[in-house]
Amino acid sequence: MQIGIIGLGRMGAGISRRLTAGGHECVVYDLNTANIDALAKDRAVATTSLADLVQKLAAPRAVWVMLPAGAPTENTVMRLGELLSAGDVIIDGGNTYYRDDIRRSKALAEKQITYLDVGTSGGVWGQGRGFCLMVGGDRAAFDRLEPVFATLAPGLGTIPRTERDGAASAQAELGYIHSGPVGSGHFVKMIHNGIEYGLMAAYAEGFGILQGKNADALPEDERYDLNLADIAEVWRRGSVITSWLLDLTAIALAKDGELAGFSGSVDDSGEGRWTLEAAIEEAVPADVLATALFARFRSRQPQAFSNKLLSAMRLGFGGHVEPKVKTT
Amino acid sequence: MQIGIIGLGRMGAGISRRLTAGGHECVVYDLNTANIDALAKDRAVATTSLADLVQKLAAPRAVWVMLPAGAPTENTVMRLGELLSAGDVIIDGGNTYYRDDIRRSKALAEKQITYLDVGTSGGVWGQGRGFCLMVGGDRAAFDRLEPVFATLAPGLGTIPRTERDGAASAQAELGYIHSGPVGSGHFVKMIHNGIEYGLMAAYAEGFGILQGKNADALPEDERYDLNLADIAEVWRRGSVITSWLLDLTAIALAKDGELAGFSGSVDDSGEGRWTLEAAIEEAVPADVLATALFARFRSRQPQAFSNKLLSAMRLGFGGHVEPKVKTT
Amino acid sequence: MQIGIIGLGRMGAGISRRLTAGGHECVVYDLNTANIDALAKDRAVATTSLADLVQKLAAPRAVWVMLPAGAPTENTVMRLGELLSAGDVIIDGGNTYYRDDIRRSKALAEKQITYLDVGTSGGVWGQGRGFCLMVGGDRAAFDRLEPVFATLAPGLGTIPRTERDGAASAQAELGYIHSGPVGSGHFVKMIHNGIEYGLMAAYAEGFGILQGKNADALPEDERYDLNLADIAEVWRRGSVITSWLLDLTAIALAKDGELAGFSGSVDDSGEGRWTLEAAIEEAVPADVLATALFARFRSRQPQAFSNKLLSAMRLGFGGHVEPKVKTT
Amino acid sequence: MQIGIIGLGRMGAGISRRLTAGGHECVVYDLNTANIDALAKDRAVATTSLADLVQKLAAPRAVWVMLPAGAPTENTVMRLGELLSAGDVIIDGGNTYYRDDIRRSKALAEKQITYLDVGTSGGVWGQGRGFCLMVGGDRAAFDRLEPVFATLAPGLGTIPRTERDGAASAQAELGYIHSGPVGSGHFVKMIHNGIEYGLMAAYAEGFGILQGKNADALPEDERYDLNLADIAEVWRRGSVITSWLLDLTAIALAKDGELAGFSGSVDDSGEGRWTLEAAIEEAVPADVLATALFARFRSRQPQAFSNKLLSAMRLGFGGHVEPKVKTT
Repeated sequence: MQIGIIGLGRMGAGISRRLTAGGHECVVYDLNTANIDALAKDRAVATTSLADLVQKLAAPRAVWVMLPAGAPTENTVMRLGELLSAGDVIIDGGNTYYRDDIRRSKALAEKQITYLDVGTSGGVWGQGRGFCLMVGGDRAAFDRLEPVFATLAPGLGTIPRTERDGAASAQAELGYIHSGPVGSGHFVKMIHNGIEYGLMAAYAEGFGILQGKNADALPEDERYDLNLADIAEVWRRGSVITSWLLDLTAIALAKDGELAGFSGSVDDSGEGRWTLEAAIEEAVPADVLATALFARFRSRQPQAFSNKLLSAMRLGFGGHVEPKVKTT
Repeated sequence: MQIGIIGLGRMGAGISRRLTAGGHECVVYDLNTANIDALAKDRAVATTSLADLVQKLAAPRAVWVMLPAGAPTENTVMRLGELLSAGDVIIDGGNTYYRDDIRRSKALAEKQITYLDVGTSGGVWGQGRGFCLMVGGDRAAFDRLEPVFATLAPGLGTIPRTERDGAASAQAELGYIHSGPVGSGHFVKMIHNGIEYGLMAAYAEGFGILQGKNADALPEDERYDLNLADIAEVWRRGSVITSWLLDLTAIALAKDGELAGFSGSVDDSGEGRWTLEAAIEEAVPADVLATALFARFRSRQPQAFSNKLLSAMRLGFGGHVEPKVKTT
Repeated sequence: MQIGIIGLGRMGAGISRRLTAGGHECVVYDLNTANIDALAKDRAVATTSLADLVQKLAAPRAVWVMLPAGAPTENTVMRLGELLSAGDVIIDGGNTYYRDDIRRSKALAEKQITYLDVGTSGGVWGQGRGFCLMVGGDRAAFDRLEPVFATLAPGLGTIPRTERDGAASAQAELGYIHSGPVGSGHFVKMIHNGIEYGLMAAYAEGFGILQGKNADALPEDERYDLNLADIAEVWRRGSVITSWLLDLTAIALAKDGELAGFSGSVDDSGEGRWTLEAAIEEAVPADVLATALFARFRSRQPQAFSNKLLSAMRLGFGGHVEPKVKTT
Repeated sequence: MQIGIIGLGRMGAGISRRLTAGGHECVVYDLNTANIDALAKDRAVATTSLADLVQKLAAPRAVWVMLPAGAPTENTVMRLGELLSAGDVIIDGGNTYYRDDIRRSKALAEKQITYLDVGTSGGVWGQGRGFCLMVGGDRAAFDRLEPVFATLAPGLGTIPRTERDGAASAQAELGYIHSGPVGSGHFVKMIHNGIEYGLMAAYAEGFGILQGKNADALPEDERYDLNLADIAEVWRRGSVITSWLLDLTAIALAKDGELAGFSGSVDDSGEGRWTLEAAIEEAVPADVLATALFARFRSRQPQAFSNKLLSAMRLGFGGHVEPKVKTT
């Protein structure tokens, strides 16, 4: 079927290419015309503006917005709300805060425009591997756009099937679900990313301890000379902790077991923070997620005020002066 | 090749059967004769005692001990030390603390018996899926026993291969490695289990927050009706957080989305605790692992003294009286 | 000076009595007339409604609202906004979320009514010990009401004075400060409570470990018979960890070293949650606060879904069945 | 009474001076003769060696060892074991691991020398403020040395007395206790320090969030200009979180509200680590302590391997490149 796609970065371009390869017609737009040109070479229909894109789509239209969460998505959705007509559908495939989905959906409903929030996981690998899709919003719109979701999703592939009863959603094992009312798609994706933070931190701590066992700081008879790349690789086969994140870890360590190209400073985006807020609202504990998030904060604040205060207290009660630390 | 196996529980029996299927001869012993009989029907050689087992093996012998860590393993290894001869090998495939390996290895070296510590992951699925093996100890003994390890390990299978340079261990991608000197196999396996604790906790927290979003306690317009089984299933395909633990989660939730058969009380074993101690010794942070371990402690202590003290303080400064909590 | 007080619970009554004792005239109101009568016997002026209270105050009026945060405070402040006149001051002494202060202040400014947010610490002990006050809002209103704050605050007392330079606020060491613009009083009080959560948890964990050292579960030669009441008492004198919360701990343990009257379930209120949200907004780590809050959540959820999922996974990969736990 | 003191650093010198001022006779030794000379001017009896110190004490002797835990204390205690006679007492006032106490006590018992482990809190302030003492070991030896403990402890002072029943230890409110068998004094002191880590971290996080609220990184209308020195000062009076550590915080912030003299790198010593190990052995949760300890580890590892691995994974799945971080 025909679909508009706005935002042709890593994710948006991958989505467009996978849809085109699956027989759909993509009408694309991006602020950067080079991105449009690149996709036009891959059989997408180029446009020159949002208005042009809307005009090139046959009603009832469907427009997939794949932009950074916050202002870029907000402004684009609002502008589309002006350009589109009753019966059209806007799909937000980005990482929008789910309460913003609910607000937007209400505003657009006044014009009988439907809003679907689609949590989209897969990153730069999605084009080849397929995207995992969690769709919130109107069920009829979901049904109408199902061919798009089915093409983007990985499908059954070679992954062993879970034994499920007859009532279970047929789509889930294909890689996409209708998760519920508007906002629920991004809510589920938000928790997905929250879990991702925790999983990443678990591997990071574990490999950190392995690496620490090789450290010169240990007495010689306490030290090993562990090969982290081999360990990541062997854990990929038959162990309890195999995962795709471990696959990526093995790839990274195979390239450089010292990870020398990285500074140690780690960024975070909204989902980890919002997951924590959701946990707090529900009074559900989220220690792993919290500490995973805070470890990233700490990684960016080598001279945190809180640490200085610890030293000030230590000096105060015990006369302790901190040793100097090497920062390489 | 021929190998003795002591301990025919879930893991030991699986190891024996996988080795037999792979063309090796297993000479087996267990305190429970029913376990011996069952394997004898599967072409293993039954024995009546440790001494009988040792006698039925041709020198140089190899004996795989697959017993609970602590006294059962310790006593068996020490007894084997008396029964075996120079040139023989004892393999501890259990979850022994790695410093115990080092101690035992030294003691056995006096009789020229070699001790290998083999971290073995795979659980009840290992027989079919293959076991992930991390082997510490004498390299020559590892080389001699490699046919056994190669049979037990999963092999390349259908898992995408990591691009590695020529110097990389050929075994790692087959599912077994020689990790270094004695103790290193169990050290690496210990960290594996530590990571496992963290991964499990990350999923548990995430699904806890999803389930909390369905809770009656929330205002109605804040609530969703999320299908956790579908969500686990969809995340298995194309998402960043796919993993074998997620596969197991999907299986469990497909059977019962409420997990009603579980009490909420969760046990822990030594590896999680030792991983934390290793982190402390190395001065490497392990917040995720720590909190994952402590959450299990808490799950078993619904009336913890520490909690009572919080309430006592709250009563003291604010006159607060705690609300009653339902325990179903 | 004359001041209206609305809300005569534990805190409000204490504030009224301390002000009256300090020579101020309190005009009081509460939904519960028994609370009004009790204070009228202590020389407060009784009123029959908000309107009556406003009428009994001479302009420019000052009204201290001491009610639970949320709807009770919100409704009262809004109603006062209707009843009061330009030049009057509303003081919110409760635990309001600081962004609500900012919103209310803006709304009231349209009628030239000033709004002060006063973080008030001291609990049930404040009447005798004095209240610690953090005041946000218009500086001139703070100055006009300073006699009230000075009376409520503890004053210098016998606490050793900190050596401070001449530019330092004279009020801080008397027990009250003007912390900045509207909202800042409750912001500072919110962080105060966040720290309180962390301090309480630190003591709770420590005493939990002491009590665990007495536990029958330990091998006999690993056990002590520590007297927790004595330990709390001795730490009050000369140790690094003396504090008022430790004083309260010592009082509670002197009454009952087993704390048998408490269930182990611990409530939480808004400030701990908001402090965490503030930390997240600022990207400042708050691991201690987070885990202190989550421990309270856990204390109320002995059969948490997240724990059940851990058990489901353990059953899945290892065939582990959890041991039964006694809940007494 | 007469007592030998070995180790005249900050703590040992303070102990000697407080005992001398209290009418006791101190026979002192230190590897640094300048330290001996300084105390000799303060009426202590100087000695030239351990043997000389032993000779200058009348039997039955009591020798207080106040040295860094580990080798310095171990070697000195063992040497004293050779020099002293049946009926003499060795007091270890340092921060020894409590299992080392038990081992030493057994060894010394063979020569009928008694070993007391005395957890000693008070830091550089102890000489004036008094030391908080937790004494493990033989009760009769404790009774004999009680005059020493009573002099070192703060006594009742001006601290409000806790209402305790008649059976309660009379000593606790004077600032010293007999905590039980050997090792228990250092066990209780270890937990004291564990709590200290948690309390310090709670304040550090809270002040970190306050300071973050002043940060230029926030939007201007989200920012306050909080005076941290005033806030620390005001919380000392009447608030729930008053404590001695807060007193020290107020002193430090009064000197420099930016704490510019500190690097942000924070050291740790054995007690925090051992407390965590004790918690693990008892299966008692200690999240606050753990995260407080790990925050110190992190403060010393700005380029931790675990952080680099997080970035490597982020690059792997999402093509994310970390932003540069300023380290000033």
